[in-house]
Amino acid sequence: MYFASDNTAGVPPEMIQALADANKGFVLGYGNDDYTRRLNERMSKLFEREVATFLVPTGTAANAIALAHIMPSWGGVICHQSAHIMTDECGAPEFFGGGTKLFGFPGDDGKLSLATVKDAIAQYSARRPHQVNAAALSITQATESGTIYRAGEIAALCETAHAAGLKVHMDGARFGNALVRLNASAADITWKAGVDVLSFGATKGGAFAAEAIVFFDPKLAEWMPERRKRGGQLLSKHRFIAAQFEAYLEQDRWLAWSRHANAMADRLAEGLKAAGIQIVWPVEANLVFAIFPQETDARLKAAGAAFYGRRPSMLPPGIKLQSGAILARMVASFATTEEHVTRFVALARG
Amino acid sequence: MYFASDNTAGVPPEMIQALADANKGFVLGYGNDDYTRRLNERMSKLFEREVATFLVPTGTAANAIALAHIMPSWGGVICHQSAHIMTDECGAPEFFGGGTKLFGFPGDDGKLSLATVKDAIAQYSARRPHQVNAAALSITQATESGTIYRAGEIAALCETAHAAGLKVHMDGARFGNALVRLNASAADITWKAGVDVLSFGATKGGAFAAEAIVFFDPKLAEWMPERRKRGGQLLSKHRFIAAQFEAYLEQDRWLAWSRHANAMADRLAEGLKAAGIQIVWPVEANLVFAIFPQETDARLKAAGAAFYGRRPSMLPPGIKLQSGAILARMVASFATTEEHVTRFVALARG
Amino acid sequence: MYFASDNTAGVPPEMIQALADANKGFVLGYGNDDYTRRLNERMSKLFEREVATFLVPTGTAANAIALAHIMPSWGGVICHQSAHIMTDECGAPEFFGGGTKLFGFPGDDGKLSLATVKDAIAQYSARRPHQVNAAALSITQATESGTIYRAGEIAALCETAHAAGLKVHMDGARFGNALVRLNASAADITWKAGVDVLSFGATKGGAFAAEAIVFFDPKLAEWMPERRKRGGQLLSKHRFIAAQFEAYLEQDRWLAWSRHANAMADRLAEGLKAAGIQIVWPVEANLVFAIFPQETDARLKAAGAAFYGRRPSMLPPGIKLQSGAILARMVASFATTEEHVTRFVALARG
Amino acid sequence: MYFASDNTAGVPPEMIQALADANKGFVLGYGNDDYTRRLNERMSKLFEREVATFLVPTGTAANAIALAHIMPSWGGVICHQSAHIMTDECGAPEFFGGGTKLFGFPGDDGKLSLATVKDAIAQYSARRPHQVNAAALSITQATESGTIYRAGEIAALCETAHAAGLKVHMDGARFGNALVRLNASAADITWKAGVDVLSFGATKGGAFAAEAIVFFDPKLAEWMPERRKRGGQLLSKHRFIAAQFEAYLEQDRWLAWSRHANAMADRLAEGLKAAGIQIVWPVEANLVFAIFPQETDARLKAAGAAFYGRRPSMLPPGIKLQSGAILARMVASFATTEEHVTRFVALARG
Repeated sequence: MYFASDNTAGVPPEMIQALADANKGFVLGYGNDDYTRRLNERMSKLFEREVATFLVPTGTAANAIALAHIMPSWGGVICHQSAHIMTDECGAPEFFGGGTKLFGFPGDDGKLSLATVKDAIAQYSARRPHQVNAAALSITQATESGTIYRAGEIAALCETAHAAGLKVHMDGARFGNALVRLNASAADITWKAGVDVLSFGATKGGAFAAEAIVFFDPKLAEWMPERRKRGGQLLSKHRFIAAQFEAYLEQDRWLAWSRHANAMADRLAEGLKAAGIQIVWPVEANLVFAIFPQETDARLKAAGAAFYGRRPSMLPPGIKLQSGAILARMVASFATTEEHVTRFVALARG
Repeated sequence: MYFASDNTAGVPPEMIQALADANKGFVLGYGNDDYTRRLNERMSKLFEREVATFLVPTGTAANAIALAHIMPSWGGVICHQSAHIMTDECGAPEFFGGGTKLFGFPGDDGKLSLATVKDAIAQYSARRPHQVNAAALSITQATESGTIYRAGEIAALCETAHAAGLKVHMDGARFGNALVRLNASAADITWKAGVDVLSFGATKGGAFAAEAIVFFDPKLAEWMPERRKRGGQLLSKHRFIAAQFEAYLEQDRWLAWSRHANAMADRLAEGLKAAGIQIVWPVEANLVFAIFPQETDARLKAAGAAFYGRRPSMLPPGIKLQSGAILARMVASFATTEEHVTRFVALARG
Repeated sequence: MYFASDNTAGVPPEMIQALADANKGFVLGYGNDDYTRRLNERMSKLFEREVATFLVPTGTAANAIALAHIMPSWGGVICHQSAHIMTDECGAPEFFGGGTKLFGFPGDDGKLSLATVKDAIAQYSARRPHQVNAAALSITQATESGTIYRAGEIAALCETAHAAGLKVHMDGARFGNALVRLNASAADITWKAGVDVLSFGATKGGAFAAEAIVFFDPKLAEWMPERRKRGGQLLSKHRFIAAQFEAYLEQDRWLAWSRHANAMADRLAEGLKAAGIQIVWPVEANLVFAIFPQETDARLKAAGAAFYGRRPSMLPPGIKLQSGAILARMVASFATTEEHVTRFVALARG
Repeated sequence: MYFASDNTAGVPPEMIQALADANKGFVLGYGNDDYTRRLNERMSKLFEREVATFLVPTGTAANAIALAHIMPSWGGVICHQSAHIMTDECGAPEFFGGGTKLFGFPGDDGKLSLATVKDAIAQYSARRPHQVNAAALSITQATESGTIYRAGEIAALCETAHAAGLKVHMDGARFGNALVRLNASAADITWKAGVDVLSFGATKGGAFAAEAIVFFDPKLAEWMPERRKRGGQLLSKHRFIAAQFEAYLEQDRWLAWSRHANAMADRLAEGLKAAGIQIVWPVEANLVFAIFPQETDARLKAAGAAFYGRRPSMLPPGIKLQSGAILARMVASFATTEEHVTRFVALARG
């Protein structure tokens, strides 16, 4: 009953096999290899246009370096107040950006509304050179609340951002989980909707440590090799990170794994709801947020169920926690089984 | 006949097995796991004192973050002019340090002499606050010339550095190769000789991507978790980097692999010498630098031998290249075979 | 009728005289001069303890460099959401701090309450190393709303901050205006209350360009000479900035000028109130915030009165602007005359 | 007999008058004033094209911010090894540039030769993304050795730099001293020769604290207002720095003052030469470098003469110092008198 995070699950056996397969003979380092070239081509195919791909071992690095590359250090990033870049990266975007400012805004269901972004841009496009003004918009897909932006929502946000001169970054640490829920292609919810650069995560989805920074306009990626290297993010035995990403994409495994994780989250949410537990946000990806009364929480933990409590301040305005109750986050992954879910729900029911 | 670099060799099968073994069940992320705890203990045992270990996926990050942690941004680093931090990290130390300055000095056999360091400190300990003054000494073990500092040499350098208030960093990307050549323990050539922090590399020696920053005084490592996280260097599925390092150290494999690589380098150097080829620096680790006349170079490359030419400016004062000749660097690794060496030498002989 | 800012007023004649007086003969540069030494001593006398003083030409630099010196780059600064460092310095604190994060909080009358700071610390002292945690508290005296922290309030905030390991910075761009309103000494409202470092402004009060960073524990100022120099903030003809500050303090001119400015603000506020204009915050320094109906605003501007409108979002929850009305900020200075005030009030009355 | 530096001389009375004249009434801050507008126009007239001018209070800031604006953080700056940016700014260019690397090269008479720059570019235009490559060339006019680049020399250097994609910065802390020695206009030795951005100093020449960053292509200056503000370099009472620069340029005072300083340097050098003292570099600006035997040095200092010794390592290869002898630097300024020179020479003669 391990629902603490999607990074606690290890990797599917295909990942280990991929490393073993790539471990053949001598190959030049630093990305000058066929694995990397093949992955680049595959990325372009996946996104239905020529893209520039840069692999890095952590999602924090992917986000921070991508943002630093599309904006000047005196710019600000409009994001949701619970975005990973805002709350969980120990200031990496500020550091890699040379002192970037992040502007966190509230938004229902963990999403930024068009109105919020318009207001934010209006507020942070003034009083030069005294105020830090907005230079980028960063949205998370799927969000930290487990919800998903629709293609139309993304397009509207991007159009507004671009009209004001902002670039758009998408934190896709759970990009697969979002994609499989939508009747859309990877292109539809990224560059076709206006996204300029994507942090495309494979680690949560099944890789050891593989994240891709994908620039949809390769010209925008000029000098990224230097930025990545200087950020200590260029792996020497680069074939192995390319091989991980290839294995992730091969045979649409990433979509299958994401579908499975989402299905487990759905099942969990339905089970909990049926057990009278309040589910906080729509379950659209592999995350379930629920309110556990104190005794439920205690019972689950006593039985060894693993999950984290989140700040009550994340809760929507209408919801208050009873004394001892917690806002619990459960994350499903490729490794979550129906049995885990069934036992968890049974325990929650009491 | 692949001698281009020790990062071109892939990994030994034990590394793949280590990942497979660590891929059991659910484990907390970010280093809160038994693999990491065990590795930390093993490191303390290896170095015969309590150390603070931080794993990162690249050697550039290890060096840059280690240096940034032991000195202020207005400090300078005394290093050899051919040190990796000086020539091959695209300014990572400068970036992570917030604008650090590196002072590169020449030195026979790729090593900094005590006299040079004394002069450097004298020069860069003056005219506050106008001049950037020395705050750290960084030495490379084994050096970029394939030579090795003896314990006594390290101790003398560290004593001089400490007396002037500098901290000492050792870039140990090839630490194993150095260690096995010396009649010394890992402690002898690090903290017992005065080194404050070590970049202890496993990648070149056999891992996929695993480098350890080892602080010999754990107090010096305060806030390193933040610095590593913010540098985008904290792996989420951390057990797998710990498992790599553990497999590297387990059963003294790293020493065996290093010994093998060094032996292949010795064999290569001896073969080339016997073939009338000039060897430039003493072969003390797994690197061989030789001067190939134009036709030798051409013949080797035509036969598919892989190696890089290095800047003639690296050459000792006395040595001049004939027209068309090159300064060639051959690197042996755990994967180099006697047959590779034999064929290479035969080709070199012509 | 110039109430746009206290930096629009030029300087009192004593300032020009001070420069002329200091323009005698040859004097060593960079602060190695008697003017600077004398100023340092005077500062220690003023604050009733040995302090370390660093002069810089802008308030933005004073704030940014002071903050950078008392906290690590991965730390966060708790401040009021309308603090100058948050809204008006184009990210200077983030830049000088190497990617510092600022946490802006609301607070009545432009002040941070003890409860807010306690909550902020509780929120930002967790989840190492993922979250940026609070490392400093910055309060503004007088505030951007023209209000003043009492000595007891400062002491309570500092005690709370120190207990959690935070350092305390005071932005004293209008320190004189605050001081003269309180029955307190400069020491009482700074280090005796727990402030660690003060940005002590003279520019708004009457100097050309002179701000002092005052460390109340000189040990905390170690390496500040380097930080200032490297920040491009060390004036070569340093005697002239010291002379400005000396002229400012000499004969308690700064207190007299501040008293005058405050008195003009009082007079303006009383006049406006009598004219039926709503005054927003208590007038405790030299700033008056008033709500001008559209026609009042128009009439004043038509007559050449200079003042700025501020964001309505700054307004306290209860106050709403009628259509066309504005939140106006008037700033008095040493140069404001009774006649300016009288005419302004008459125009406002209509 | 004050020859320690040109920043020890105070200011000419015209400077004080200029401040007094500008101290009239209320004027908007931060450069939104007529003094600043007028200065900008004058700059364009002086340079015979539309330029973008940014005033800052220190030369270190001018250099560091100018360089940061014309190159990426992963770029390197080719400069003379004794350039001010290399030796005297405590790493400000590295800091403002986000970790820029400076490459210092030797060069006769304190000047970079075309051959050196060509070699430097060849060396630092390779091995992407591992090596920091050259992105800017910085030359000093007049140099730290008191010599001057001719228009043709500048043009050749700029052409070479531009052909390799580098931008060119000129550190003109003593720009006036260089200009008056050449039969050329300010345009001739800057943009007409290819310079992209100039640090145009007025402080050493006579101002209190006024340096101009001049972009010859205003488009290159986009976002400089933000960079300057965020660097803590935007003066609030900006009219006074504009007034200083205006007074400097008005009636060609700067040229007259520079001519005087140069003439005093000439006179000093001739006097010393006649007294048998060795002059090290051609005296082309207001600096004289001489070798003083121990007793000469002692006699001068005993009599109260002020000057600094410089590192013997600055000396040309052929020149060795006798025991006790020093390399002395004497700097003349607008304030140096013939009597100072005469007495100094008499003392030197013994």
